[in-house]
Amino acid sequence: MKRFTSLRAVALAALTIATYACASTQPSSTASTTVAPSPTTLASGPLPPPTYQPAFGTMWTFEAPPLDYWRKTYGFAPDQKWLDHVRLSTIRLPNCSSSFVSSNGLVLTNHHCARDCTDAVSPKDSNYIETGFAAATLNDEKKCEGLYVDQLISIEPVTDKVRAAVTGSTPAQQAQQRTQIVSQIQSDCAKSTGLTCQVVSLYQGGIYSLYRYKRFSDLRLVMVPEEQIAAFGGDPDNFTYPRYDLDFALLRVYENNAPYHPTDYLKWSANGAAEGEPIFIVGNPGSTGRLNTLAQMEYLRDVTYPASLAGYKRALDIYDLVEKGDTSAARRYQNQVFGIQNSQKAIGGYRRGLIDSVRMAQKRAFEAEFRARVNADPALRARYGFAWDSIAAATRQLATFAAQSRNYGFGPSATLGGSTLLAMAAQIVRLPAESAKPDAARLTAYRGAGLDNIKRALTSERRIDIPFERAALATQLRLAQQELPAGDPFLAAALAGRTPEAAADALVSGTKLGDVNTRRALVEGGAAAVAASTDPMIVLARAIDPLNRGILARADSLNAIITANAERVGQALYATYGTTLPPDATFTLRISDGVVKSYPANGTITPYKTTFYGLYERATAFDNKPPFNLPQRWIARKDRLNLATPYDFVSTNDITGGNSGSPVINRNAEIIGLAFDSNIEGVASRFLLNPEVDRMVGVHSAGIVEAIRKMYDGARIADELQGK
Amino acid sequence: MKRFTSLRAVALAALTIATYACASTQPSSTASTTVAPSPTTLASGPLPPPTYQPAFGTMWTFEAPPLDYWRKTYGFAPDQKWLDHVRLSTIRLPNCSSSFVSSNGLVLTNHHCARDCTDAVSPKDSNYIETGFAAATLNDEKKCEGLYVDQLISIEPVTDKVRAAVTGSTPAQQAQQRTQIVSQIQSDCAKSTGLTCQVVSLYQGGIYSLYRYKRFSDLRLVMVPEEQIAAFGGDPDNFTYPRYDLDFALLRVYENNAPYHPTDYLKWSANGAAEGEPIFIVGNPGSTGRLNTLAQMEYLRDVTYPASLAGYKRALDIYDLVEKGDTSAARRYQNQVFGIQNSQKAIGGYRRGLIDSVRMAQKRAFEAEFRARVNADPALRARYGFAWDSIAAATRQLATFAAQSRNYGFGPSATLGGSTLLAMAAQIVRLPAESAKPDAARLTAYRGAGLDNIKRALTSERRIDIPFERAALATQLRLAQQELPAGDPFLAAALAGRTPEAAADALVSGTKLGDVNTRRALVEGGAAAVAASTDPMIVLARAIDPLNRGILARADSLNAIITANAERVGQALYATYGTTLPPDATFTLRISDGVVKSYPANGTITPYKTTFYGLYERATAFDNKPPFNLPQRWIARKDRLNLATPYDFVSTNDITGGNSGSPVINRNAEIIGLAFDSNIEGVASRFLLNPEVDRMVGVHSAGIVEAIRKMYDGARIADELQGK
Repeated sequence: MKRFTSLRAVALAALTIATYACASTQPSSTASTTVAPSPTTLASGPLPPPTYQPAFGTMWTFEAPPLDYWRKTYGFAPDQKWLDHVRLSTIRLPNCSSSFVSSNGLVLTNHHCARDCTDAVSPKDSNYIETGFAAATLNDEKKCEGLYVDQLISIEPVTDKVRAAVTGSTPAQQAQQRTQIVSQIQSDCAKSTGLTCQVVSLYQGGIYSLYRYKRFSDLRLVMVPEEQIAAFGGDPDNFTYPRYDLDFALLRVYENNAPYHPTDYLKWSANGAAEGEPIFIVGNPGSTGRLNTLAQMEYLRDVTYPASLAGYKRALDIYDLVEKGDTSAARRYQNQVFGIQNSQKAIGGYRRGLIDSVRMAQKRAFEAEFRARVNADPALRARYGFAWDSIAAATRQLATFAAQSRNYGFGPSATLGGSTLLAMAAQIVRLPAESAKPDAARLTAYRGAGLDNIKRALTSERRIDIPFERAALATQLRLAQQELPAGDPFLAAALAGRTPEAAADALVSGTKLGDVNTRRALVEGGAAAVAASTDPMIVLARAIDPLNRGILARADSLNAIITANAERVGQALYATYGTTLPPDATFTLRISDGVVKSYPANGTITPYKTTFYGLYERATAFDNKPPFNLPQRWIARKDRLNLATPYDFVSTNDITGGNSGSPVINRNAEIIGLAFDSNIEGVASRFLLNPEVDRMVGVHSAGIVEAIRKMYDGARIADELQGK
Repeated sequence: MKRFTSLRAVALAALTIATYACASTQPSSTASTTVAPSPTTLASGPLPPPTYQPAFGTMWTFEAPPLDYWRKTYGFAPDQKWLDHVRLSTIRLPNCSSSFVSSNGLVLTNHHCARDCTDAVSPKDSNYIETGFAAATLNDEKKCEGLYVDQLISIEPVTDKVRAAVTGSTPAQQAQQRTQIVSQIQSDCAKSTGLTCQVVSLYQGGIYSLYRYKRFSDLRLVMVPEEQIAAFGGDPDNFTYPRYDLDFALLRVYENNAPYHPTDYLKWSANGAAEGEPIFIVGNPGSTGRLNTLAQMEYLRDVTYPASLAGYKRALDIYDLVEKGDTSAARRYQNQVFGIQNSQKAIGGYRRGLIDSVRMAQKRAFEAEFRARVNADPALRARYGFAWDSIAAATRQLATFAAQSRNYGFGPSATLGGSTLLAMAAQIVRLPAESAKPDAARLTAYRGAGLDNIKRALTSERRIDIPFERAALATQLRLAQQELPAGDPFLAAALAGRTPEAAADALVSGTKLGDVNTRRALVEGGAAAVAASTDPMIVLARAIDPLNRGILARADSLNAIITANAERVGQALYATYGTTLPPDATFTLRISDGVVKSYPANGTITPYKTTFYGLYERATAFDNKPPFNLPQRWIARKDRLNLATPYDFVSTNDITGGNSGSPVINRNAEIIGLAFDSNIEGVASRFLLNPEVDRMVGVHSAGIVEAIRKMYDGARIADELQGK
C-alpha cells in the first residue's frame, strides 16, 4: 500500500542527505562562475539584531534549543536534565522516529514504520497487516529481522576540527580533505566508544557536529492494529485532516534475549493533548528546503514541479488507457497509481507553498534582509555576497535547456509510466562503457553493487505488458515532439518522420528485447554485440545515449555551482543568524515546539481533535465503502468504545517525512500523542511554514489506550503504557 | 441571529429584481453611447447549433423544461402531469420556497424561513427559537400573522402583447409604455381571475410571461427544532459542508379555519437521497448574474468587490477597537459583526468565482461564441452587436472615478461601521431639498413613505456611541485621505488640514446632533435653519452634499447605459440560444436537475451525506463549545437516535438565495430532502457554475423523520409526513 510512503518516503525520496556521509558527492568548483553581488533594496542604517522567523519553522537541534524564545512564548523552558531525558528517550528507526515508552523497553512508533516487520512476521496463512496483532505475552512478541534503532548518546561540535583539516587551495582538494577528516573523526569515535558515529553538517556546511548513537538491533513486534484502521481513509485522506487513523505500532527493544530496561523513557499522559497546550515533538525530520534561495524556489516552482506534475498526469493517463483494454490491469497497477497520486499530492502541495503569496512575500523579505546583513559586513560580503546571484544565474542557465533535459533520455521510470523495453535497451547499451570505467567514474546507478544488479535484472525473466509499452513510448515521444524544436537530433532518431504513435508501434513490435535470451546474448556479447545489433530499440538507445550524456554533463556542472553556492548561503546564514533560525532538516534529532490548535479551512473552523464518533461518521457517510470501510472488529465491538474519546489531533508543530512515529510530549515530558502526518496545507511547509494553517496530525494518547483496551483486549500492553 | 440572512438575505440584498414591477426603474437612454461592434476572434464558418453550457446552471423555468436534455442525461424526462403536479405542490413564501407535503396542507420549509413566525408566536416567558416547538394537536398549531404563500397556478406568454404596446420612438416613451401595458395585463388578470398576477421578465427582457398565483394567507406553525440544532455550527459552518443542521420547519395552510386540502402535495420518500441518484429541486432562486457580460464581471471582480471586502475589514476593525474599550459592546454589536462576516463570506465567495481561472475561461469562451452568433446574423448584429462594447466602455468610465464614488459620501451605513451622526446630518441637510421635489424626482430613500420615516427617525431619541462615532469617522476620513488626490474638495472640506483622527474628534465633540432637540429644531426649521447652522457635522454635510449628488449623477448615467445594454444582451441571448440556457434567477419558480454526489475538497473526498454520528463528532471535537454546542434535548436523548441515519447531504443541483426551503424530489416526485444552503465552493456559482465542486446542501428526509420521532415526540407529525 503506497499510502505509507506519503510523509515518509516522498520526503525521503527528495532528501538531499545532509549528513556528511554524502556531502563529499557535492561538487564545489565554482570559481569561474561567481558574479558580483547585486545591491539589496533594504533601507540603509544599522540592522537590528536577527530575530526568529516563524516561516523557518521549529526544527531545533538539541545542540541549540531556543530556551529564551520558549520561555518568552510559553512561559516554560526545559532544563538540561529534561532535554537529556527527552533526547535519550527518543530513538531513530531506519526511516522513522520512535521512543521508549516503558521501563521494559516498549517502543512507540507509527503503524506505517513497522509495516515491513508486520508483514515479515505474519504467519503463512494470514497477514497481520490485515488482521492486526497483539502479543498476549512477552513470548508472543515477534522478532523483526534486520530492524534496529539508534539512540543519540552525545553530540560534539567538530566544526573547528573539520575546518582546520581543510587547507587545500582548490575545491577538489578541499572536498577530498573534508571527506578524509570526517572519515577519521567517525572511525576514531567508533573505535574509542563502540558507538555508531556520524558527522552531521548543519546549515548546509555552516557547522559540523559529531553525533554518537547507541544501536539496538533486537526489536520485536508487540502490537499493531489492522492497516485498515491505522490508515483509515487510504490515499484520499492521506496528507489531510480531519483524520481518523489509528496509526501506531508497538515494538520492544530486547538485549540478551530479554526486554531492555532503558535509562530513559517517556511516561504516558493521563489526559493527552488539550487545546491551546504548548507541546513538543521530538524526532528525525528528513529533509526541508527552507534555506533554498528564492532563485532555487522559483526554479522548482516554474520548471521542476510543473514538469513533474505534468508527468504524473501523463502517467495516470497511460494507466487509465491500459486499464480500459485490460480488466486485470487495474489491480496490477494499483500500487503505481496510488504512488503517483501520492506524489501528485506531495509535489502539488510543495508547489502550492511556492505560489502562496503570503509565504513567498515572507521569503522575499527575509532574503532581502539576510543579504543586507551579509553585505553590511565586508568580510561576509566578500566570502558569500555573490552566492545568491551565482545560484540565480545557474538556474537561469538550467532553464534554457530544461526541455532537452526532460526529453534527451529514456523516458520516466516504469512506475511513472515509462517504457521498460527502452529502459532495458539503455542499460544494455551502457553496460559495456560503464563496466570499463573505474567504479567512481561510473554513472551513479552503475556504481558498487549497481552494475551487477542491473546485469542480473537484464538476464532474468521479466513480464512485458505490450499495450502499456506502446502507450508509454507514444506518450514519451509525443511530449518530445511538443517540447523540442523541429529538426532536433532526438526527434530525428526517435521519430524519423513518423508520428509518435507509429514510431512507438514500430519499436514495440520490432524489438526482441522482451525475450530474455536476446537480452542475455547482448549483455554477454558486450560492446561488439551492442554495436552490431539492429534491434530497433537498441538502435534508438545507441542514438539517445550520447545526447543524454551530453545534456547530463551540462546540467551537472550547473548543479555543482548551485550546490557549492548553497553551501555558502548556509555558512552565511550561520555566520549571520547563528542558531536564531533552525537548520534545514537532516534526518537527525530535532525538537519542535508548537501548540494544540484548530485552524481555518473549508470556509469554517477545523477542530483541534477528532473523536471515535468521527470515525464512524466517515465510514457511515461513505456507506462503508473502501477505503472508508472499517475492520470487522471495529464494527462488532463498536459499543464497547467510548465514542467521545479523543482520537486524532492537530498542532502547530513543524514536522516532515522522517518525523513519522515521533513522540508528542507535554512540558512534563509525558506522551500526549504520536505524530504521523501533516494536513494538506502543511505539505507546503517543505519550503516555508505558515503557522496559521499548517498542522501536524497525530494520534491522541487517549485514543490509543482506549483502542488497545476495548478493541484488542490489550490490557497487558495498555497497563504497561500507563505504568499500571 | 444574522446567520440566517446568509443564503437568503445576502443574495436577496444583491437581488436585481427582474420581475417587471421594478423593471420600469431601469433607465434606457443609450443612443448616444453605442459603439461599433468589435470583431470576435472565433474561427469563421457556420456555427453549430447552440448547446447547453453547464456553467449557466440549471435554473429551468416550468415554461421550458429541457426535456430532451434530461432524457439524454438521466434516461428520464417527466411528463406534463408530473410537471404540473410538482409546480402546484411547491409554494412561495415571501423570501423563501416551500412545498405542500400532506393532504392536510402541511408545508415543509427551512427553520430560517419560519424564524420570524417562530419568534412571534412564542410565549412571553420563553422563546421557541431557543426551545423548539412541536404542536401536540391541531389546536396547538400557532397562527403566523402576516405570513402567506403563493401557489403558481398558470403561466401565459405575453411577450407579443408587451412588444406590441411599446411603439414609442424614445427610450423614455418605451419605458412608460412598457410600464403601462404590464400594469394593465396584471390588473386585467387580477380582475378576471381573482389571483395574484405578475408579469415576469426573463432573459433581462428577452421574454415576458404572466405568472398567476393563488395566495394562502392563513399559515400556522406546526413544529420547529431549536435554532441551536437547526443552525448547528452557527456562522462558521454557514455556507459550508460537511454540515450537521436540522434546518427545517413545518407550517400548515388553513382555509376557513380548517386545514387546507391541497390538490397536489409531495409524498415522502421511504429511503431519501441515495448517491448517484438524479434529483430535482423546485423553488424560487432570487438572483444570479450569469448573463452579466465579461466586462460587468470584471468590474465586480476588480472594483466593486475588492472595495466591499476592504470595507468589511475596516468595519470589523472598528468593532474590534470599540469592543476593546467597552466590554458591553461585544454583545451590543454581535449581530452587526456576524452580518459583516456573513457578507465577507458571500462576497468573498462571489469574487473567488470571478478569479477562478476554470470558470472565467468558460465565460470568455462562451462570450466569444455568443457574440460570433450575434454577429453572424446581420439583423441581430445591428440590433445587439454593440451592446457588449457599450457596457465595457461604461464600466471603464465608472472605474475612472471609482475612488470618488466611494468617498464623496457620508460613509457606510451604521451597520457597516459608518457614523450615525454624519448620516443624520446628511438627512437633515437633504430633507428640505427633497421635500420640495415631486415624489418621483426625489432620491430613492426619500420617495413614498421614505421621507416621513426619515423625519420620524431624526426626531426620535437615539443612542449614540461616542467611541464608535470617533472610530467610524476617523476610518472614513483615513480612507478618503488614502484614496483621493491631495487638494480634493472632499478632503479640503472634511479635513481642513487636520489628521483624520483630529478631524473626527473635532466633529464628534463639536456636534450637538446627538441631542434630539437639536435635530428636531433643524428638521422643523427647514432650509433656512440648515443654511444657518454652524454645527460642524451640518457644515460638513452641506459641503459633501453637492459633491455626492454630482458623482451620483455621473455614475447613474453610466449605470443606465449598462442596464439598457444588459437588456439587449438578454434579448440577444434569447434570440440566439432560445431556452437552451436557463434565464438568470428572478425569484420565480424554477426546477433544477442534479445528482447526489460527493466532491473533492480539502485534499480528499467529501462524502455525499452526513449522519448523526457527525453531529456528535463535531460537537465533541469542539468540546461542546458554542456554536458547536447541542441543545439539552439532543444530549439527553442521544441514545434514542440511530446515529447512522442520514442527516444532511449534497447534490449538484443549482440553487441560490430564495431557494431556501425548496423541496428536493426524486423522479417519483417524492421528497428526499430539503434544500437550505450551498457549500463554500457553491457561493461562487452566483456568476458561473462549476459542477465539479459546487454543491447544494440539504437536510435528508430520513434525518428529519428520525429527529421528529425520537427527539420531539412528534409521531403525529411524522406519521402525517410519511402518510401513515
